[in-house]
Amino acid sequence: MNKIDSVVGKDQSAFGFLRDTEYPVSPVRVGIVGVTGIVGGKLLEILKEESFPIKKLRVFASAKSESTFLDSPFGVLPVEILNPRQVPELDLVFMAAGTAIARSWGWRFARRKTLVIDKSSYFRDKSYAPLVIPEVNESDLDSSQFIYANPNCATITIVHALKPLHDQFELRSFTAATYQSVSGAGLKGVQAYENEISGSSLDSSPFPERIIGNVIPWIGDSDEATSDEEKKVISESRKILSLPRLPIRVTCVRVPVLTGHSVAISADFRRSVDLDKAKELLAKFPGVELIDNPHDSEFPTPLKAMGTNKTFVGRVRLDRGKRGLSLWVSSDNLRKGAAFNAVQIAQKLLQRRKF
Amino acid sequence: MNKIDSVVGKDQSAFGFLRDTEYPVSPVRVGIVGVTGIVGGKLLEILKEESFPIKKLRVFASAKSESTFLDSPFGVLPVEILNPRQVPELDLVFMAAGTAIARSWGWRFARRKTLVIDKSSYFRDKSYAPLVIPEVNESDLDSSQFIYANPNCATITIVHALKPLHDQFELRSFTAATYQSVSGAGLKGVQAYENEISGSSLDSSPFPERIIGNVIPWIGDSDEATSDEEKKVISESRKILSLPRLPIRVTCVRVPVLTGHSVAISADFRRSVDLDKAKELLAKFPGVELIDNPHDSEFPTPLKAMGTNKTFVGRVRLDRGKRGLSLWVSSDNLRKGAAFNAVQIAQKLLQRRKF
Repeated sequence: MNKIDSVVGKDQSAFGFLRDTEYPVSPVRVGIVGVTGIVGGKLLEILKEESFPIKKLRVFASAKSESTFLDSPFGVLPVEILNPRQVPELDLVFMAAGTAIARSWGWRFARRKTLVIDKSSYFRDKSYAPLVIPEVNESDLDSSQFIYANPNCATITIVHALKPLHDQFELRSFTAATYQSVSGAGLKGVQAYENEISGSSLDSSPFPERIIGNVIPWIGDSDEATSDEEKKVISESRKILSLPRLPIRVTCVRVPVLTGHSVAISADFRRSVDLDKAKELLAKFPGVELIDNPHDSEFPTPLKAMGTNKTFVGRVRLDRGKRGLSLWVSSDNLRKGAAFNAVQIAQKLLQRRKF
Repeated sequence: MNKIDSVVGKDQSAFGFLRDTEYPVSPVRVGIVGVTGIVGGKLLEILKEESFPIKKLRVFASAKSESTFLDSPFGVLPVEILNPRQVPELDLVFMAAGTAIARSWGWRFARRKTLVIDKSSYFRDKSYAPLVIPEVNESDLDSSQFIYANPNCATITIVHALKPLHDQFELRSFTAATYQSVSGAGLKGVQAYENEISGSSLDSSPFPERIIGNVIPWIGDSDEATSDEEKKVISESRKILSLPRLPIRVTCVRVPVLTGHSVAISADFRRSVDLDKAKELLAKFPGVELIDNPHDSEFPTPLKAMGTNKTFVGRVRLDRGKRGLSLWVSSDNLRKGAAFNAVQIAQKLLQRRKF
């Protein structure tokens, strides 16, 4: 995928502002906080792939990486430690370091007019922070705010697939069951998966039970009957779709897959659904790829999605008379579910702002 | 689990006929067709565990096992080949050899008054063949028929969990997404899984794509948008629950788990659901075990279910006002999902018949 494709998507008319905007803009000073994490590393990879207009790149991690160097697609970079007495001067910072860093550093950057794109859940429910999947609710980027939140990886997979259907048929409710990969739990998740495969120690696993040869129906903790991950899917989907009372039933499940989240979705609509029209809308929606010929083994899988920036949709079928549609979605949780979506937000913001 | 428990279940009152029946009955002549398959082997194991009253045991397989011997829990057994000119004289035969053998051999046995319990899908939709999960619809065994069908493994897992809720709150519809293990595809599925782990050839895999590190949303073939497995869940659930028009939306998915099927279910009911009552009904229902304390990692998983004869239910939570309930179910697809359920049917039939 070249840069222009990724910005414009397939349907250029939906992105008409591009015609009035110079692109690329002048290069900017970029920071990545949490660069040693799995999403941090993926951000570097995607910024390079997308030829993001970078004037200066600085990367940050926790104190245990002090005085180390990172071999990156941009050459060897010194890893810096954030210091509240010397807030770095940046135009744009990607934060992928969890909620504690988001809380303490988000506004430090924003107060200095650094655009913040945060991957943690900390800002997602804040009314001032746009929560954006660019293909879905790009207009929410028309904000004077400096803090933007990147949605949860499962949320992105679900909402990206439902949006074209909602636009046409008006979503009434949906039920989803997820099949989420271990890399959604970060490097610790990947390490636990690899340790279990090789038969070594399970001491540091972030999972409550063995994950190889198993599935675990509980992601993120919670004192309630609903897991944290399920709460995120519910509240974020409602916010992104501007449907604050949308009924959502979701079960979030970890599966022994390295990378790639999948979701079985059954949705109900207010208008009668035409199956061919639904497939046509999905096929032409920016960032979505329809793979739907199951008797020839053509359906989305996490293996097919891994390493791509697309949301793959298949198994599209009518039910509940013509008011329901079931579908199956897979996407790379580190790319479209995280780093690629964050870079897309950055690309859109650059087009909107002067530096 | 001792034999009486497995027959009587937890709620003895529901099995009152036992008081009028001598148990165990006199030993019978038993056959297993398809003994070299994965369910055939599990049948031998469970017949032994259950101290099934066997007078004579004969085992059958396809021609490629001719003149071989099987090391079984009942000692070394000669493997026989079925011959239409010499139909074996048996009181009871378990058939676990696919639809073609069921079609050609089911009535040959039945005409000779041999009770047939068939594991394939061939008889399941036949109106004359009771399709039975003993804890759910035992009364369907009150039949003069000789052919009985064992339901699909995913169907058993789902319907066993829904039955106590349906009895109290009246099921209106349900949506299910399955997480089905490779042993559901038989020995070939297990071999493909083990070959992929060890990195050897994938030539004979029954799966349309790699299964290790992947999930595959298509089980059984079909020319339609709905897979064969999904059609089975829909038609069998309706038959077992005697709800011929029950709306069911299901997505059947293969996951890299050796043994143990799991299902995320969201159900709607006609009556208002009381959560505590729902949990109480599940906890005391025969064959069901409630594991529902997720913050302490207490939820069903296929690893917990493997090797047991129970249907484990957890993650029980209200939604859709009080008309909806979501839950998560795991059970051993080779045991409660197949061989154990078949042996339970046989136990019940023995109590009903004279030999």
